[in-house]
Amino acid sequence: MTFSLKDEACIVGVGETPYVRGEGSGMSAAKLILTACVAAIRDAGLEPNEVDGIMTPMMGLSAEEFAANLGIQNLRYASHVDMGGASSVASVQSAALAVTAGVANYVVVPNGWNGYSGMRAREIGDDGSFPMGATLGNYYVPFGVNAPPQFYSIMARRHMYQYDWEPEALGAIAVAMRKHAQLNDKAYMRGRPLTLEDYKASPWIAAPYRLLDCCLETDGAAAIVVTTAERARELAKRTNHKPVYISGIAEGHPYPADDIINRDDLFTIGLSYAAPKAYEMAGIGPEDADFAEIYDCFTFEVLQQIEEAGFCKRGEGPSFVQGGRIELGGKLPINTHGGLLSEAHVIGMNHLVEATRQLRGEAGQRQVENASVGVVTGWGDFGDGSLAVLTSK
Amino acid sequence: MTFSLKDEACIVGVGETPYVRGEGSGMSAAKLILTACVAAIRDAGLEPNEVDGIMTPMMGLSAEEFAANLGIQNLRYASHVDMGGASSVASVQSAALAVTAGVANYVVVPNGWNGYSGMRAREIGDDGSFPMGATLGNYYVPFGVNAPPQFYSIMARRHMYQYDWEPEALGAIAVAMRKHAQLNDKAYMRGRPLTLEDYKASPWIAAPYRLLDCCLETDGAAAIVVTTAERARELAKRTNHKPVYISGIAEGHPYPADDIINRDDLFTIGLSYAAPKAYEMAGIGPEDADFAEIYDCFTFEVLQQIEEAGFCKRGEGPSFVQGGRIELGGKLPINTHGGLLSEAHVIGMNHLVEATRQLRGEAGQRQVENASVGVVTGWGDFGDGSLAVLTSK
Repeated sequence: MTFSLKDEACIVGVGETPYVRGEGSGMSAAKLILTACVAAIRDAGLEPNEVDGIMTPMMGLSAEEFAANLGIQNLRYASHVDMGGASSVASVQSAALAVTAGVANYVVVPNGWNGYSGMRAREIGDDGSFPMGATLGNYYVPFGVNAPPQFYSIMARRHMYQYDWEPEALGAIAVAMRKHAQLNDKAYMRGRPLTLEDYKASPWIAAPYRLLDCCLETDGAAAIVVTTAERARELAKRTNHKPVYISGIAEGHPYPADDIINRDDLFTIGLSYAAPKAYEMAGIGPEDADFAEIYDCFTFEVLQQIEEAGFCKRGEGPSFVQGGRIELGGKLPINTHGGLLSEAHVIGMNHLVEATRQLRGEAGQRQVENASVGVVTGWGDFGDGSLAVLTSK
Repeated sequence: MTFSLKDEACIVGVGETPYVRGEGSGMSAAKLILTACVAAIRDAGLEPNEVDGIMTPMMGLSAEEFAANLGIQNLRYASHVDMGGASSVASVQSAALAVTAGVANYVVVPNGWNGYSGMRAREIGDDGSFPMGATLGNYYVPFGVNAPPQFYSIMARRHMYQYDWEPEALGAIAVAMRKHAQLNDKAYMRGRPLTLEDYKASPWIAAPYRLLDCCLETDGAAAIVVTTAERARELAKRTNHKPVYISGIAEGHPYPADDIINRDDLFTIGLSYAAPKAYEMAGIGPEDADFAEIYDCFTFEVLQQIEEAGFCKRGEGPSFVQGGRIELGGKLPINTHGGLLSEAHVIGMNHLVEATRQLRGEAGQRQVENASVGVVTGWGDFGDGSLAVLTSK
């Protein structure tokens, strides 16, 4: 027999550090991550040493250091997913597997970094190393393509040509994320509203991307805690937080995984494989979602993922994102926290935190009314993808 | 509800490269690993592109490179365990979780490296980096402790003092592994038998370790394929290999995980936590094992794991390993292939390959008669541990 993960595991705790630029956090990546973990663990109604599983983050903290710092005497599960920005959601899949099979009881899933004061995604190291998309770098760097907005502009440009649309579609995404950030105290861009005209006036980075198509570089970390549905219902009695069910979840990898340009179809990405699998597990389709938190390293990636996650047909993304549909109050609010574009870049872990808050009904001013189904996606270096269908009752 | 992994997943394929020193393999780590993977996949009766899951190895190959090289169009699961020598067995746990939950159908679990012609475990890099146990290195290197035999000699010395035993115990382990290697065509030490006198005459490395207490440095790789028990029974009709059931499996981490010397008890290691958990899952105890493949980076680690895996009480290891009990024909043959000490060092993946061959009844000259229960352990950098109870019918 095989076994379905559907509704077997829940997110029971969420935690974050402040998201900052300016003088930076003054904290190491390890300290940022541990701080977010402790906040998530306490939010779950637990003590740090009750955690017995860790999905190690993209950088900054080994399982050993994590256990030693939190005082975990019996760490029973430690694993790692290396899918760049798709790692946060894909790690939830592994955490759900571990708790459901009793390998561990409480698994913490963190991510974060000194993305402003430390290593920046856009920079080449002093030693010539590529901090992001290193292998990708190996193929394309000789041609002058050496930073993420360049890698991804290739797909954006092709889509724009093939489906014949104008840059206002990308602007609408930037504007919607910024609008949501105005309702979120934690968002770095709170207090700095944005108009489509501001967007159009922002400088080119790698056409069709302007500065305001690109996500933030911030210091910070976020974390969630995953346990079984049964334990989640017990914890809820203490914390008064609704359990948030992992109803469907999957990861996917494009082919060939390591080479964007030589794919038969530039728009079939990891998410194209992951989405139908996750919906099938959940028995819930994209049409049932009350909101979506879409990995937004750049604006076009939101558009492409809207299509590949099945919210509209391929080529319809540019019209889908305009006219307020993806804004709070619209049919499918996207990135209700402001996303990587306007809240912070913590490798998508903030998308899981926000989805949990929405499904608990704890999103304050930006609460989606009666939200009970949320979709969260991840997008990784080569177009790796992951999708979670989260629900509450 | 939670769910038990017991007997839900099987090992259905095993593969290896040659194990060499001399002029080295002439292959990159990636090529060694891919070669072993293809061998394991074909041994399972599958084509490379039927695999849809990968536990990425300790070094040398990302999931993306793996999928691109094997032509896997729909890679559905890629994960990584970072527990040094405990990773091979712990990775089998993740593979079993993935196939049991239908996340992937066929997961390949490889490990290997250019441990002779490339990076050697004992060497400090030209840049001052520590190839093995890097974090451990950070603590102890200022005191001149900078290579694995030094780290581990601390525990060996303490055990020797506390339980008052003679070096012949370690010699008996080296001699037994070498004896088994004489029956294994793949073993690097085939044709080079060893006596206790040879052992005693070998030079000191870090007392109580002599040269012949230390595992080999070899080039090579090994891999296994994991799938559901149901699929395993189908494949067996084609391959005529008995399915090998993963009946119990667990990992464990000592506390504090990142600092050996400051532990309350030097002998409570990851395996001390993992072993009872794996036996409980299997409903099988150490007394039921027909053989054991014990991670043997150094001789004392075999002795200590024999104790912590419950084959005898703590302090009884030195007498347990003498008098032929751990040799083929004895009550508990250990490392029937020769182990890391006399076959090859591929991070313990060869232990899983050998256990599978024994349980299939395909171990030739070194076959343990009627073997139906085997125990395999892993030992990682800081004393991380893992244990699998494998069975056949």
